[in-house]
Amino acid sequence: MVSIHRLALDSPADRSGLARRYAMVRQRTEALAVALSPEDQGLQSMPDASPTKWHRAHTTWFFETFVLVPHLPGYRPFDPDYGYLFNSYYEAVGPRHPRPQRGMLSRPGVGDIARYRAHVDAAMERLSVAAAGPSWQAASALIELGLNHEEQHQELILMDIKHALSLNPLLPAYAPARPSPARAASALEFVEFPGGLREIGHGGAGFAFDNESPRHKVWLAPFRLASRLVTVGEYLAFIADDGYRRAELWLSDGWATVRQEGWTAPLYWRATGQGWTIFTLAGARPLDLAEPVCHVSYYEAEAFARWAGKRLPTEAEWEIAAVEAGVALDGNLMDRGIYHPQPAEPGAAGLAQMVGDVWEWTQSPYSPYPGYRPAAGAVGEYNGKFMVNQMVLRGGAAVTPPGHVRLSYRNFFPPAARWPFGGIRLAEDA
Amino acid sequence: MVSIHRLALDSPADRSGLARRYAMVRQRTEALAVALSPEDQGLQSMPDASPTKWHRAHTTWFFETFVLVPHLPGYRPFDPDYGYLFNSYYEAVGPRHPRPQRGMLSRPGVGDIARYRAHVDAAMERLSVAAAGPSWQAASALIELGLNHEEQHQELILMDIKHALSLNPLLPAYAPARPSPARAASALEFVEFPGGLREIGHGGAGFAFDNESPRHKVWLAPFRLASRLVTVGEYLAFIADDGYRRAELWLSDGWATVRQEGWTAPLYWRATGQGWTIFTLAGARPLDLAEPVCHVSYYEAEAFARWAGKRLPTEAEWEIAAVEAGVALDGNLMDRGIYHPQPAEPGAAGLAQMVGDVWEWTQSPYSPYPGYRPAAGAVGEYNGKFMVNQMVLRGGAAVTPPGHVRLSYRNFFPPAARWPFGGIRLAEDA
Amino acid sequence: MVSIHRLALDSPADRSGLARRYAMVRQRTEALAVALSPEDQGLQSMPDASPTKWHRAHTTWFFETFVLVPHLPGYRPFDPDYGYLFNSYYEAVGPRHPRPQRGMLSRPGVGDIARYRAHVDAAMERLSVAAAGPSWQAASALIELGLNHEEQHQELILMDIKHALSLNPLLPAYAPARPSPARAASALEFVEFPGGLREIGHGGAGFAFDNESPRHKVWLAPFRLASRLVTVGEYLAFIADDGYRRAELWLSDGWATVRQEGWTAPLYWRATGQGWTIFTLAGARPLDLAEPVCHVSYYEAEAFARWAGKRLPTEAEWEIAAVEAGVALDGNLMDRGIYHPQPAEPGAAGLAQMVGDVWEWTQSPYSPYPGYRPAAGAVGEYNGKFMVNQMVLRGGAAVTPPGHVRLSYRNFFPPAARWPFGGIRLAEDA
Amino acid sequence: MVSIHRLALDSPADRSGLARRYAMVRQRTEALAVALSPEDQGLQSMPDASPTKWHRAHTTWFFETFVLVPHLPGYRPFDPDYGYLFNSYYEAVGPRHPRPQRGMLSRPGVGDIARYRAHVDAAMERLSVAAAGPSWQAASALIELGLNHEEQHQELILMDIKHALSLNPLLPAYAPARPSPARAASALEFVEFPGGLREIGHGGAGFAFDNESPRHKVWLAPFRLASRLVTVGEYLAFIADDGYRRAELWLSDGWATVRQEGWTAPLYWRATGQGWTIFTLAGARPLDLAEPVCHVSYYEAEAFARWAGKRLPTEAEWEIAAVEAGVALDGNLMDRGIYHPQPAEPGAAGLAQMVGDVWEWTQSPYSPYPGYRPAAGAVGEYNGKFMVNQMVLRGGAAVTPPGHVRLSYRNFFPPAARWPFGGIRLAEDA
Repeated sequence: MVSIHRLALDSPADRSGLARRYAMVRQRTEALAVALSPEDQGLQSMPDASPTKWHRAHTTWFFETFVLVPHLPGYRPFDPDYGYLFNSYYEAVGPRHPRPQRGMLSRPGVGDIARYRAHVDAAMERLSVAAAGPSWQAASALIELGLNHEEQHQELILMDIKHALSLNPLLPAYAPARPSPARAASALEFVEFPGGLREIGHGGAGFAFDNESPRHKVWLAPFRLASRLVTVGEYLAFIADDGYRRAELWLSDGWATVRQEGWTAPLYWRATGQGWTIFTLAGARPLDLAEPVCHVSYYEAEAFARWAGKRLPTEAEWEIAAVEAGVALDGNLMDRGIYHPQPAEPGAAGLAQMVGDVWEWTQSPYSPYPGYRPAAGAVGEYNGKFMVNQMVLRGGAAVTPPGHVRLSYRNFFPPAARWPFGGIRLAEDA
Repeated sequence: MVSIHRLALDSPADRSGLARRYAMVRQRTEALAVALSPEDQGLQSMPDASPTKWHRAHTTWFFETFVLVPHLPGYRPFDPDYGYLFNSYYEAVGPRHPRPQRGMLSRPGVGDIARYRAHVDAAMERLSVAAAGPSWQAASALIELGLNHEEQHQELILMDIKHALSLNPLLPAYAPARPSPARAASALEFVEFPGGLREIGHGGAGFAFDNESPRHKVWLAPFRLASRLVTVGEYLAFIADDGYRRAELWLSDGWATVRQEGWTAPLYWRATGQGWTIFTLAGARPLDLAEPVCHVSYYEAEAFARWAGKRLPTEAEWEIAAVEAGVALDGNLMDRGIYHPQPAEPGAAGLAQMVGDVWEWTQSPYSPYPGYRPAAGAVGEYNGKFMVNQMVLRGGAAVTPPGHVRLSYRNFFPPAARWPFGGIRLAEDA
Repeated sequence: MVSIHRLALDSPADRSGLARRYAMVRQRTEALAVALSPEDQGLQSMPDASPTKWHRAHTTWFFETFVLVPHLPGYRPFDPDYGYLFNSYYEAVGPRHPRPQRGMLSRPGVGDIARYRAHVDAAMERLSVAAAGPSWQAASALIELGLNHEEQHQELILMDIKHALSLNPLLPAYAPARPSPARAASALEFVEFPGGLREIGHGGAGFAFDNESPRHKVWLAPFRLASRLVTVGEYLAFIADDGYRRAELWLSDGWATVRQEGWTAPLYWRATGQGWTIFTLAGARPLDLAEPVCHVSYYEAEAFARWAGKRLPTEAEWEIAAVEAGVALDGNLMDRGIYHPQPAEPGAAGLAQMVGDVWEWTQSPYSPYPGYRPAAGAVGEYNGKFMVNQMVLRGGAAVTPPGHVRLSYRNFFPPAARWPFGGIRLAEDA
Repeated sequence: MVSIHRLALDSPADRSGLARRYAMVRQRTEALAVALSPEDQGLQSMPDASPTKWHRAHTTWFFETFVLVPHLPGYRPFDPDYGYLFNSYYEAVGPRHPRPQRGMLSRPGVGDIARYRAHVDAAMERLSVAAAGPSWQAASALIELGLNHEEQHQELILMDIKHALSLNPLLPAYAPARPSPARAASALEFVEFPGGLREIGHGGAGFAFDNESPRHKVWLAPFRLASRLVTVGEYLAFIADDGYRRAELWLSDGWATVRQEGWTAPLYWRATGQGWTIFTLAGARPLDLAEPVCHVSYYEAEAFARWAGKRLPTEAEWEIAAVEAGVALDGNLMDRGIYHPQPAEPGAAGLAQMVGDVWEWTQSPYSPYPGYRPAAGAVGEYNGKFMVNQMVLRGGAAVTPPGHVRLSYRNFFPPAARWPFGGIRLAEDA
């Protein structure tokens, strides 16, 4: 957690500011769960996904375990069993309930979880008032980490419930549909960047995850980045050109996956007598040709790029381009309540849709930056131990909480994962 | 459904009698679910088990599909999707939701299911009042089948929720524990029967499943049947004598299962520092040496019998013995609310524990009786298509509804199944 | 091995007779392997099948382990490792090489195996000359068992190599094709038998496997048995009538298997542009409509019978019919060198094709006869431990050694097995 | 195949030189197979491995398909079926025999394969004499590729047969043991390199695989590389320190693999009553503490490095260090006939064991170099399509043909692979 130690937050203003941020983040989690019945909140549709209820408890367990137990004298854990039930993958903290069986936990119920959250929130309030300076300094860095952690789980709540609801033949909606502007896709252009010896990675004063550090030099050849995301209409052309049936377009592992899984389209698309429909968090509806294609794997993104005669960007190219183009940290994020990517605004110059809409697959494997070292202790398991067999995605999606993403932010998933909101931005050598 | 056609129920008395029985059976299902939260009712712990909520809906679907739609003019199904969601395995009725994904149905919720049940119950009431004679005659046989079907699912509700709750590290109880009499096991004796040319199978006027017919002749050599069930104490001696580690005691498939599954004791037993505990529907507690061993597979029952120098009875021996010994159709059944086998009453002569406590594995594969033919149509799928790879169990268990079991009743499960309440009664050649 | 103890063979004539039979059986095994290269003899195409070379060694190991080591003083095993390599499933004899890895044993090579066989044959010769009377009496029963065991493995050699060669895209022939008589199928008739209280099982003086005993009474209702086997032409009508696509024709487990395995025809049939071809031990050729259908599972046999409005016979019906019809113990067996079933001879009265051509699936699960007890010691593992999850087949096939089969002979396989030469004879209630 | 087009070989001297090299490489393949019986040559021990016989045929198919058919007028393929049987993974060439079933090909036999090789070799000789200039120019680049391809399969022959023989309980040796010098491990030192803006990748005139190009700039921070490989003795200390039981030392996927596979030591190690033994191509023997640890996965290499407080090098660091240290392209390679890594020579300065002994895992995922483009056509499938889910290894092993490896050579395997000769060299930040 190199980056955590850069935080210097010990002033009264920091305490109340962090307390307000704590209240806001915690409340947003609860708001996401409001639309879901107790039965919905218990669903686990695959080992990679977790029940809503479990996310609510696990994020609470994080504060209890890493902040309250070490830093609030006299704190009594809400329930001694919860440490076992709601540890996700922290080997250093001890044994834990097997991940694929999270959906079996009908008890504790949603009422118990609400009480657990209230218990921890009250204790956190006491801590923020009562902690002595040095203790607060240590705790506040962990609180900031816990809030970023909870924001990640907010996105997971939406990803996971979308997958679960999609398996219900009734195709229930999580949220009401919002009218989307009827737009044509803007023209696809390629914006050139000169490359050279540059720096990437987090270097500023605010919070960042350890995997964004250290900031370091990279050499980039000149390159061009697409002005917007690949659209559903463009992806349909790939399908129509037998994209899912031509081995030469695919990485070998990708082709094996296509055949084994029987993929013929992105996740959540369904061929009907009246054409393709797509399942969204607002229910099923016809495809919109202008909206960005979403819920594709790295394999599909990479094959599409090959078919298009282009390639995916590296994460360094993506970051340098975003910085040089002055990309702002807003866009179609979770706070808009759309929970689905939208067509690019027409007439925008430069790089559109860099932040929000979909996470953009890069061709960069998720590896440590030069000089990277994970933090000591259990929180050191946060990122480093996943640095193999995964690809980096950049930019945030329509289910990412506002304020969470950075231009240096490194998201990562295995190349076959389709339940993240992953999409495609093309690149090419200049 | 040969047996159904034997029913002749067209009199006013029959109508009100059947209606009362309908109300009683349907109400018992609801009573079983009362102790379970909406989250509990959605649990599916393995493909063989179903959520409580699903059982409640499926039994209702049975009446809707096989009774109301064909026999109540103008009946409108509660929800057209439910035919897909709640068909279990009736290929003739159409496609259905995949069995292993029943636990994914957070919608419809428990409230919807309650309304579904009320809707069908109200229609059934109208039918019982309004149906013309011939229509009633046809319907009443199906109603009787539907009630017996629902009774089977009542037992499944308890079997399935027991399995699901056992996977929760909190080991929650379904029902409060009832004080059990502290008894020593009675002496094990063998009661002799002379055999000869006898008849087995259902031959009377009341309801029976088609698999109990036709009544037919069998030749039996003289044999002896144990006076009571095998106890936990006796089974512990088998374990202590390396029963789970000696290949020569096991059928080949059984031994392969023991090694693959890592079995070292019956299902729901757990070795702790303080000895074995057992999980019951009233929670976890220490073993009672005098109570019958339960939740063993056929493989374990068969291996135990070989170790004991005995064998399991055939289903014909069991039935003839029960008839000749005058076994009554009551015992430790569901209505006692214990939901667990109990020690045999001391001092009883003859055959104890034949009805209730545990289903008794026989050495008889589940095959059609000579001359057996399933009914035409979808209800013909009820029994016949399962007549391979299963073994017959007799006698009913502590979770079987009273009035449901008969001396000719043939229950059946695959030889590796342990979540039924299966136990052991020994036999030997005379 | 109850039946073994009935043997009484201690006379000089017995010794030389048994020695001649030993030489003949052992030589036949070698003759079956002559057509196969060292590479062919090492093939293991699935866990259920074994390499030819392994069969040659394992049958030799049987004599070494059960006859020579206990009964020939001073005998030195050929190689101490072979006991581990060539034990099949005798738990009592000790650990053994894992069955699915038999194909990995490139060493010992075919030359080593030939030397192993010669070593054991020489020792067996010494035993037959030198053994004292009581020792010979014990040994001779085991020799007879060993010879019957080796005959079973001769059939397995042909079954297994057929399966292995069928996976080679070159479809190589094991043996040259023999011209088959061009015949139409004879008319299908049903021969009636009165039933009643009868006896089945082995009761004579000659050798029989323990599973054929004890001879015992059964009660049979009157029944009829088809005059010949079901033909390829009749089976094609089942296929053409969507037999593999209609769930209502199948046992539940059978239907699940059909869908999971993608079965659309018997094993070794292949749909080509010019119609169906069939792979035989003489290579691939077009189907012959008049020949018996072969390489069907129990599931397929049972579904075909249901489709035809008939049923499969029980094993008791089959045996009583064969005895009462005076069926002789010859037919299209291994010695004809055809290795494939042939059309029934036209104009034959009564029951044709009962012995030879194909093993006939019965509806009888493989269970112990009343009073059955396996022998003590390792040879007791021969039959009894397989008495679950299997169905009985009767009558022998075109790959069964002559003299091996009896009217009381009980072959058995799991209901999904298709690599045995299994076929169909219909029955019905009289 | 960018690099191929750099070749310019059209002179009589080139022709005879390439012909001599062709003869030498082809002959070496045959020499590797001489020690193996026909049965050995048919073994396939896992889907990733292939039979020796198949390697001999596939390398021949490569010349037939990519050189003779397009470039030798009138060439007739040896057998039209071989194109199907011996295509490895070239989707563009057409369908092919399923990889996991290569071990089922008892036919064609080793004699057929020898004739196939002779047929193609004779045609290649005709081509080298008769081809016109432009045709030869095109062909010669493919011949060079084919020879490098065959050298790779020579290494695979040894890797694969080692795995297959290791599964035989007899633990047969492939080759006689060569006396190894009894040495202590030399001291482990770290050699520093300054980093900066450097170039890696193939840039010279000779042959290189396309994945080594284009040569390109990289920025390196200062670093240090270990002076020799990690030894068995050092690895034993990792095991003794509970290396295989401490989750915190492992990548998450690595830890999951350790638990699922039950790893407790490198592949081919076996714990015996007398300590560890190791299986080598010369049979089983005790461990030598001074020799390099071999047959570890990336996961194990990475965990060892973490335990040691170091890290693995990147491939750029490895290449720059090798170039700057003036590493020569010889070492313990296949031609020494040892087929196993050996202790470093004592007293050597600088970087020892960089070439030969073991392939050295780097922390670099196998990704395309900037500007990389695979060749058009089927040979373009050679490298690019594997660029995901694999890690780069550098330096060659004791089973790599001499002359095959380069300092820019990029070998690659999935992180769980243990049957390659993979070992460990440590690095650290300067």
